[in-house]
Amino acid sequence: MSHTLAELANYVGGRAEGDVTCVIDNVASLGSAGSRHLSFFTGGKHKDSLATTGAGAVVLSAKHAELSSTNLIIVDNPLLAFAKIAQKLNPQEHLPGIHPDATVESDAVIDATACVGAQCVIASGVQIEAGVVISASCVIEKNCVIGKNSRLHANVTLNDETTIGKNCVIHSGAVIGGDGFGMANDEGRWIKIPQLGRVVIGDDVEVGANTTIDRGTLDDTVIGNGVKLDNQIQIAHNVCIGDHTAIAGCVGIAGSTSIGRYCTIAGGVGIVGQIEIADNVHITAASVVTQSIANSGAYSSGTPLQENAKWQRNFVRFRQLDETYKKLKRIEKQINNK
Amino acid sequence: MSHTLAELANYVGGRAEGDVTCVIDNVASLGSAGSRHLSFFTGGKHKDSLATTGAGAVVLSAKHAELSSTNLIIVDNPLLAFAKIAQKLNPQEHLPGIHPDATVESDAVIDATACVGAQCVIASGVQIEAGVVISASCVIEKNCVIGKNSRLHANVTLNDETTIGKNCVIHSGAVIGGDGFGMANDEGRWIKIPQLGRVVIGDDVEVGANTTIDRGTLDDTVIGNGVKLDNQIQIAHNVCIGDHTAIAGCVGIAGSTSIGRYCTIAGGVGIVGQIEIADNVHITAASVVTQSIANSGAYSSGTPLQENAKWQRNFVRFRQLDETYKKLKRIEKQINNK
Amino acid sequence: MSHTLAELANYVGGRAEGDVTCVIDNVASLGSAGSRHLSFFTGGKHKDSLATTGAGAVVLSAKHAELSSTNLIIVDNPLLAFAKIAQKLNPQEHLPGIHPDATVESDAVIDATACVGAQCVIASGVQIEAGVVISASCVIEKNCVIGKNSRLHANVTLNDETTIGKNCVIHSGAVIGGDGFGMANDEGRWIKIPQLGRVVIGDDVEVGANTTIDRGTLDDTVIGNGVKLDNQIQIAHNVCIGDHTAIAGCVGIAGSTSIGRYCTIAGGVGIVGQIEIADNVHITAASVVTQSIANSGAYSSGTPLQENAKWQRNFVRFRQLDETYKKLKRIEKQINNK
Repeated sequence: MSHTLAELANYVGGRAEGDVTCVIDNVASLGSAGSRHLSFFTGGKHKDSLATTGAGAVVLSAKHAELSSTNLIIVDNPLLAFAKIAQKLNPQEHLPGIHPDATVESDAVIDATACVGAQCVIASGVQIEAGVVISASCVIEKNCVIGKNSRLHANVTLNDETTIGKNCVIHSGAVIGGDGFGMANDEGRWIKIPQLGRVVIGDDVEVGANTTIDRGTLDDTVIGNGVKLDNQIQIAHNVCIGDHTAIAGCVGIAGSTSIGRYCTIAGGVGIVGQIEIADNVHITAASVVTQSIANSGAYSSGTPLQENAKWQRNFVRFRQLDETYKKLKRIEKQINNK
Repeated sequence: MSHTLAELANYVGGRAEGDVTCVIDNVASLGSAGSRHLSFFTGGKHKDSLATTGAGAVVLSAKHAELSSTNLIIVDNPLLAFAKIAQKLNPQEHLPGIHPDATVESDAVIDATACVGAQCVIASGVQIEAGVVISASCVIEKNCVIGKNSRLHANVTLNDETTIGKNCVIHSGAVIGGDGFGMANDEGRWIKIPQLGRVVIGDDVEVGANTTIDRGTLDDTVIGNGVKLDNQIQIAHNVCIGDHTAIAGCVGIAGSTSIGRYCTIAGGVGIVGQIEIADNVHITAASVVTQSIANSGAYSSGTPLQENAKWQRNFVRFRQLDETYKKLKRIEKQINNK
Repeated sequence: MSHTLAELANYVGGRAEGDVTCVIDNVASLGSAGSRHLSFFTGGKHKDSLATTGAGAVVLSAKHAELSSTNLIIVDNPLLAFAKIAQKLNPQEHLPGIHPDATVESDAVIDATACVGAQCVIASGVQIEAGVVISASCVIEKNCVIGKNSRLHANVTLNDETTIGKNCVIHSGAVIGGDGFGMANDEGRWIKIPQLGRVVIGDDVEVGANTTIDRGTLDDTVIGNGVKLDNQIQIAHNVCIGDHTAIAGCVGIAGSTSIGRYCTIAGGVGIVGQIEIADNVHITAASVVTQSIANSGAYSSGTPLQENAKWQRNFVRFRQLDETYKKLKRIEKQINNK
């Protein structure tokens, strides 16, 4: 799947410089690229690698062009251009058909262009649209719908009634549609509330490995279009996530919380239940969100890493923070009254 | 599975008001319910939805009765009554039998009323009791025991010797009985300590999707009766969890820690190893527990979410907390000596 | 697999005391051991159990010998000796061969001494070396390599091109080789950057249940020799982990971060992307690492657990930490100027 530099520049609306006839087979990092590889540069600490790269060409922005002596594609957003070229050079092709070692219920509707891998289980009432790829050992329970050109990697579980849009990617070990954690208390004992809602996932969504998305209790859990979820995220029942929000690994979102559009939530963040987060909110790594956020902007919580011995002393003083504050107030008053 | 309002009220020991002959087919939320649905109200922000609901009936407590103009079931604990009715209206039925695409060792003992799904693997020495449902693609390793009426959702793994009680629900992707993280250090290199204990789970336990419970090193890891575990919880070797304790998603509990009965542990909490937590302890979201807790009550740790710019300034000052405290002490002394 | 005490002492280079001809069948805890069991003692709170144990023999260090009245193996590192003896008494044996219910592509190369369990899927181009054990329902995608004597527990997923060294143990639900979370932003929408690197795992590595290790974007994600990873760890694309580092459960490591050799990272730690951590760094539970660590040593972050009411007051004061600090500075100046 080779192209000339001129073709690739044209494909991403960029300007080719140098030998525009050079042939590019694939992409690679600045450090490992050879003469038929395209690499990229977005600034920062890789300046040395750019100067010495063996890449046949590099995609970068105009302001960095002079840092390189190889062939170039000059664009405004080099990472975006690189992503598009990398996709073009690495098309995903799959032979359609159902593997003979899959178990498929007779009333499941599977498009003839879809692919179902070995050891998959496709239950009754499932609809699988054109171009869908389901890798080995997935379980698709009753009445699930998987939209056009979506891809499930190996060992994904879709519990019953789950709906997945078009062009989604679901990674291995993800569980979509498990019961929400809903219980009533009966004098100390927990009584399960049946979880009767579904999970409804939009188009162009990515769900990371071993991420879990629970079905709603009565209404649905909803993941908007273009949402990107990294690995090991936990999304509880009746959460709604707005379009084009990206959430990094190990985030937990408790029940019935609603998150806006175009948000970014960094790794390890915890978000309590029953709150609302506005559009364009950005939360930094390992923060804990305990209240609704009404305004866009960047938010954080947490304390700094220190050498253990120093930290121990500050850790202890946190217990006295309010007392310290009040003592200071008293002293201030005492001084000002003199 | 329809019932009149009078029948349902009688079933939960409540009082029916309005048209007690109205027929209820299922439950739904206040916002989406129709005339043959029962909904519930427990107070708070859904007051408007209660006033405008299309539900055929609502279950609520006497103090909220006047807020609704539809038919009612009046009870002391509306959520509990709703849970019981929702279960009654949504019975889980499964045809018994072993799917022909399952792999079952000849000496596994499977009750004739149990159900084993497609692509399951049931190893030697396994005992599966009456009414058990094992969904597709589960692996049940050697000598596991699964008690009456328990249900394993798709893609559960029970490593060898695991024992599950009666009426349990294990969600997809859960791994029960993996090796504990036990090693000895040999001049910098880690040597594995074989993990020879089991996981023993009581009756009426729920285990969430992708939750992991490690086997004990020598003695067992023990989960008490009525314990409810949400998704993506990690329970290390030799942990003991007391009866009727509920633990929310993304909690991690390190080795040999013992947790009491009737505790609630909110999402994202971390609990170190080798400690003991009393009965009736409640820990709020994302807290970190580094010492034993001897008395019942509510406990917390953590810092508040702030706009990033403000947080940065406070974050830095945490490093000087002990220094600040000591400075204040000196000033206090100085002033009082004047 | 029985041995006399003398044989076992000799095996670990220790000194047998008491009846050196007593026969040991297996290991057990001090509390549950019988006369044909060996137990161990490393100090601390188990002193009472040592005094009353029914164990046939105990392995401990010379300084603790007088605390016991049973037969002994005296060594410098009792836990290490115990680990070695426990391994010797519990050999892992498996019949070689491919289960008839596995799906194996014709061009996969599987050593005749390897074992492939029921419902496994072994794709094209896979190489499985001598003595490898693959338990039930694993998926090994295209071109993966699994080195000699490594063991995959049930339901492991190796995405394509993953390389595992010798003598590794991979626990159930682990996903190795999923796509990294790499995207470019196109006016608010996220465009996927194809993830073309691999995961390369060294020798003697353990990977815990439901742990996820993402493939590199262009270059590889690399796990060194002797690395031990507990359950539910998330390792992002292009992370490098140095030899003999041990990481406890629920740790998340963001993209392109490099961790040194002989580190220990406790449970629940979060580590941001693009940083470097030196050799011999030890990070305590639930800390958050936001900057590179250049020097070996112990590091921590976080705040103490308190009763909820007390914590609430301190929690609020954290918002004013910088303001409090500055107020104190002003007062100090005011006093010193008097």
